[in-house]
Amino acid sequence: MNYDVLIVGAGFSGLVLAERLSSQLGKRCLVVEQRDHIGGNAWDEYDDAGVLIHTYGPHYFRTNSPRIREYLSQFTGWHPVDYRILSHTEGRYWSFPINLQTFEQMLGRPSTTEEWEKYLAAHRIAISAPANSEEVIISQVGWELYNRFFKGYTQKQWACHPKELDASVCGRIPIRTNRDDRYLSDSFQALPSGGYHRMFRKILAASPGVQVLLRTNYREVLPHVSWKQMIYTGPIDEYFDCKLGALPYRSLRFERESFSAEQLESRIPISGKRGFWQPAMQVNYPNENDFTRIVEVKHATGQSCDNTTIVREYPQAFGPGKEAYYPIPAPAPRQLYAQYAEMAATLQNVSFVGRLATYQYYNMDQVVGMALAEFDRIKKRETGNQ
Amino acid sequence: MNYDVLIVGAGFSGLVLAERLSSQLGKRCLVVEQRDHIGGNAWDEYDDAGVLIHTYGPHYFRTNSPRIREYLSQFTGWHPVDYRILSHTEGRYWSFPINLQTFEQMLGRPSTTEEWEKYLAAHRIAISAPANSEEVIISQVGWELYNRFFKGYTQKQWACHPKELDASVCGRIPIRTNRDDRYLSDSFQALPSGGYHRMFRKILAASPGVQVLLRTNYREVLPHVSWKQMIYTGPIDEYFDCKLGALPYRSLRFERESFSAEQLESRIPISGKRGFWQPAMQVNYPNENDFTRIVEVKHATGQSCDNTTIVREYPQAFGPGKEAYYPIPAPAPRQLYAQYAEMAATLQNVSFVGRLATYQYYNMDQVVGMALAEFDRIKKRETGNQ
Repeated sequence: MNYDVLIVGAGFSGLVLAERLSSQLGKRCLVVEQRDHIGGNAWDEYDDAGVLIHTYGPHYFRTNSPRIREYLSQFTGWHPVDYRILSHTEGRYWSFPINLQTFEQMLGRPSTTEEWEKYLAAHRIAISAPANSEEVIISQVGWELYNRFFKGYTQKQWACHPKELDASVCGRIPIRTNRDDRYLSDSFQALPSGGYHRMFRKILAASPGVQVLLRTNYREVLPHVSWKQMIYTGPIDEYFDCKLGALPYRSLRFERESFSAEQLESRIPISGKRGFWQPAMQVNYPNENDFTRIVEVKHATGQSCDNTTIVREYPQAFGPGKEAYYPIPAPAPRQLYAQYAEMAATLQNVSFVGRLATYQYYNMDQVVGMALAEFDRIKKRETGNQ
Repeated sequence: MNYDVLIVGAGFSGLVLAERLSSQLGKRCLVVEQRDHIGGNAWDEYDDAGVLIHTYGPHYFRTNSPRIREYLSQFTGWHPVDYRILSHTEGRYWSFPINLQTFEQMLGRPSTTEEWEKYLAAHRIAISAPANSEEVIISQVGWELYNRFFKGYTQKQWACHPKELDASVCGRIPIRTNRDDRYLSDSFQALPSGGYHRMFRKILAASPGVQVLLRTNYREVLPHVSWKQMIYTGPIDEYFDCKLGALPYRSLRFERESFSAEQLESRIPISGKRGFWQPAMQVNYPNENDFTRIVEVKHATGQSCDNTTIVREYPQAFGPGKEAYYPIPAPAPRQLYAQYAEMAATLQNVSFVGRLATYQYYNMDQVVGMALAEFDRIKKRETGNQ
């Protein structure tokens, strides 16, 4: 079968490029996807209890880019959300990311930004250029808060010491001296109003002639289809048969638990709201538990229902049959990736797009931006060739 | 690409056969589907308002067959439902299918089976062998009830006079002399507890190696794949290029309307329940409106939410771009189908399974039964060949 473009993977990158290439340039595309659904890890679904959950862990959409917001707004309305999370340790919920409210909880009394800044000045460790995730936190808040909120969480999440991880890993969590407890600071924070899965189906519906082959490894298809260009959004090492060695990933295991309206009655003192199990969309468990966090995404989706589902997240080693969730943000894997990227750069008609193909933990809007940029590049090249 | 079985259509028939052939006989199957989702017309989904609706009209699952129930129970739990419908005409809701309660509404006072049977004896038209849909109803209840509940509905639904339709069309609606107002009388009446779409995904998950090609007409694939056997579940006339003429169908247009919890407040006197728009899952509108019925499937799904979505159903002519919902239950189309069926019977390695391929308005359980029977046939043939 003849296609203009073979797209490997039906996640954000693959679908956005399928839509752009088919609707704007009239390209005939085949999207090949290993799973039985489109949307990649951003897929959401109503579970057996009728609760909308994020199947592959929570996906909090946010962006500062009007272009990306406008592009996606063609396919979905939005449900604005102030994403708020908490941390739970030593038997209590803490305001998080660390802010003046967290400090007040430590003191057990009201405080001020001045007092809080004095605490920080007295406790932070002077490091001019933090080189890893331990240094980036202790240089801001000192050992006590690092030990309480960061050390255990990071070790569970990555199965290595924060010292071994890039500063960017813990560095992306804000530390605030005012009372602002928002998780993210982007100008636009919202979820697709009907869910991600409906948005993906609408992106596909706007993609004339695009065919989708599910439950299939693209290599099976290669001998039987012709194409002029490939968009590859899978793991870059697999494209090259892992010939330089396999890139390491961190995987996750999700444990879901559903609660009926009746079961939730006794949780009201904790959740503060009828129909919820915990007081926030996400609660981090840095220390006492094997899971890293409990997500009750119903806080963010705004779904109207009496019951709920929570998801406990257990980090686990990556391996055969496990999903590759997180590239490991450390120097050695990054170097290995760079070698693969060099090999990729020599290929004329294959583009590597997205989180797995660039071995980088991008947010969703960044992935959409990358796909739109790749579309621009292809369009320009084609226009130049004419 | 090489497959054992090419399956055309991912509805009930196609998916059940894909599961059986792959899991029991190790067949390598490709399912080719024109739409962007599996499940055919039985597909359901949560709409933009978060309400679970039946995308292609209501699908009330029921069966008397333990084998069919047990087969599907591998892939879903069940939410038991007493399907209840009403009819709305002359400005009021009527108990329907016609029963003693309907008679009491006519009289405006309580009555008895004896009085109701006397009414029927005095009004029914003596026809020993009813030959069409008008005769089958007037021979049971007479002209008054026929005109009130059947004539207009049937004309809208089929765009022809009940006299021109098989007796079976109206004949399948029960007429009862007791107070029983259940729509259906099968021993098992329930919906898949997580929705049809989840059940279909689980059927697919239990189908090792089955690949699914969406948004594709199977003819496009034919020159590029090899197969030993085809399961064809599309319209039988299209398989033969409509060379004897196109089989007629009736199509539908759906108009959805969503209501917030606030908007529903004023409907409580009518619906009798907070969070609902109308008093029953389905209300037929035989006379005064262009739509035939309003379906609020939330009554049946048991979804817990404050808001709702209703769907008005408008029958419409079939043609290019329209979905083929109902084979026309009349003598001439049936004869044309018989000619196609003869042609189909001469094909050694193509099976015609399901509603469209056999031009027959089967219920879902019947379609599953047909698919399981086809599997038995294939299995027996293969065992015989060894």
